[in-house]
Amino acid sequence: MPQIRKDPLSERWIIIAEGRDARPNEYVRAAPHRIDKSCPFCRGHERETPKPLAVYPQGSSNGSWTVRVVPNKYPAFLNHGDVEVTQTGLYHACDAVGRHEVIIESPRHVTSLSGLTETETCWLMHAYRDRLQVLAEQSRFRSALIFKNVGPEAGASLEHSHSQIVAMPMVPVELESELSASERLYQESGCCFFCRVLADELTEAQRLVAQTDRFVAICPYASRSPFELWVLPRQHSSHFERQTDADLADLARFLREMIEKIESRHPQLAYNYFIHSAPFDRQALPHYHWHLEIFPRLTTAAGFEWGAGYYINPVPPEQAAAILRASAAAGQ
Amino acid sequence: MPQIRKDPLSERWIIIAEGRDARPNEYVRAAPHRIDKSCPFCRGHERETPKPLAVYPQGSSNGSWTVRVVPNKYPAFLNHGDVEVTQTGLYHACDAVGRHEVIIESPRHVTSLSGLTETETCWLMHAYRDRLQVLAEQSRFRSALIFKNVGPEAGASLEHSHSQIVAMPMVPVELESELSASERLYQESGCCFFCRVLADELTEAQRLVAQTDRFVAICPYASRSPFELWVLPRQHSSHFERQTDADLADLARFLREMIEKIESRHPQLAYNYFIHSAPFDRQALPHYHWHLEIFPRLTTAAGFEWGAGYYINPVPPEQAAAILRASAAAGQ
Repeated sequence: MPQIRKDPLSERWIIIAEGRDARPNEYVRAAPHRIDKSCPFCRGHERETPKPLAVYPQGSSNGSWTVRVVPNKYPAFLNHGDVEVTQTGLYHACDAVGRHEVIIESPRHVTSLSGLTETETCWLMHAYRDRLQVLAEQSRFRSALIFKNVGPEAGASLEHSHSQIVAMPMVPVELESELSASERLYQESGCCFFCRVLADELTEAQRLVAQTDRFVAICPYASRSPFELWVLPRQHSSHFERQTDADLADLARFLREMIEKIESRHPQLAYNYFIHSAPFDRQALPHYHWHLEIFPRLTTAAGFEWGAGYYINPVPPEQAAAILRASAAAGQ
Repeated sequence: MPQIRKDPLSERWIIIAEGRDARPNEYVRAAPHRIDKSCPFCRGHERETPKPLAVYPQGSSNGSWTVRVVPNKYPAFLNHGDVEVTQTGLYHACDAVGRHEVIIESPRHVTSLSGLTETETCWLMHAYRDRLQVLAEQSRFRSALIFKNVGPEAGASLEHSHSQIVAMPMVPVELESELSASERLYQESGCCFFCRVLADELTEAQRLVAQTDRFVAICPYASRSPFELWVLPRQHSSHFERQTDADLADLARFLREMIEKIESRHPQLAYNYFIHSAPFDRQALPHYHWHLEIFPRLTTAAGFEWGAGYYINPVPPEQAAAILRASAAAGQ
């Protein structure tokens, strides 16, 4: 029996329609990844990208870097303009003020996070934290979104493994709705909703995929997509930028292992992930818990999803979690 | 200068980032449509689909139908079960009760609405209205969504031109948010927001694409996607199922012309459209105006869109409307 499930945070309903994956072409097939000799992100092509904002290890030269952060050449947000909202007739608008940065994750032409070395992944996590710390200091920005697109079906325009950060003068609607829902749930129960989810999932183990001393991976109850996977810190923390070096080292290993697990089931997978972290202008929040959401692009949002705002997921998260628990990551 | 625009109904912010379409692979290219000899929707294959719920012209036999309505063989919603929401621990769920129907738009293997004859398109509009009327009579259903997927990038699993209807015991979140926002705007101004938009767009003509005596097509102010196009009835009406035969005949011609206009710019386009119409259990609403939203799949929602809930649209709707005004539809 298909089931509709309500995501307690976004209050979005999700249809869990088991067996629907038997439908022809239910899954979009990923185009094979090509190696492009003229890739601007490869070592030796440093001049094709703007001057770096940061390099890892710190102080590396053009020949020796492991991870490089550069401004996006085609930014959706620009670092100047007026953040004030103006009204014209029925409509409101403001300039798209912000910063749009790209993190090149390796000098080698790898196409997924799973192709990175442990060192590269670890520097990548450092870049995430350090850039958030730098951007948080600019008072015009209220929040930033870190995200990653892998494969054309996931909206990647370049195949060389990279992440992006967008810092904005506002709090994006998806994050805001999580913040307000989690605040309401905190007021009702006196406890962080994410911490309650973690406790439940660790006890019941139905949707639990893996865990370390510091991090837990689950397939969320109201997964929008097959094999959707969330990584959460075990210890309550609202801001990603407050993670320690030891946290980042553990997260790097764990995240790579989770991507490998999904890819061992779906080779050449197109996927997105993003980090939801509390806004810069709020103190440590007792009700919000930063997390990373991995979003495999195995289904296509179609007319129903766009028109209804509901998602049809043909793989129940309990089944996805069982499959992922059984999948060995390459490193295991 | 890129711009952020707020959709007054969903309150979603849209980034209008002109010039961003110069980015490599900004546009997903549509896979060429194949003719599949074993298509279950073609004439002669009627036994491969469930028994029809309706045929057009009414009373047609298997050999002579123009449009056929059948139950979906892989329904996301089933016509039995319990609509009551139950709570288990932190979560709420209920059975996915509903009806999921497919409308086969032609006995010929055409792959877009633009391939239909005028008669086929007209019967299709009749099928939309008649099915809504039938489903509205079942008190367990509060609303239905009519939608269409064309091309694999738009989530179509079969290329033979077809639409779908899902009737549900609830009002989908996207529709509900339009209903509540438009009610609030009505209370503020004493006038239907959609009627105000129509009056403005007809006067300013910046985002106006085309019009008839009965219908108007515009690229909405906060378009999520390049060439997003809305068709609205000129006369205020909250429920699609109350359209007259004359309305449907005009809509059929107009809708086909709008699709042809977009396709003349983007051949073999993947697209979705859906109809937002007021819930069955509400009387004619002064604040809500049914409309059809066409959603070309020229960009891919990526990590930023999923993570932020914001959309990046590289083509300003004023520019899209100017291009579409200049595009001749095949029939012109």
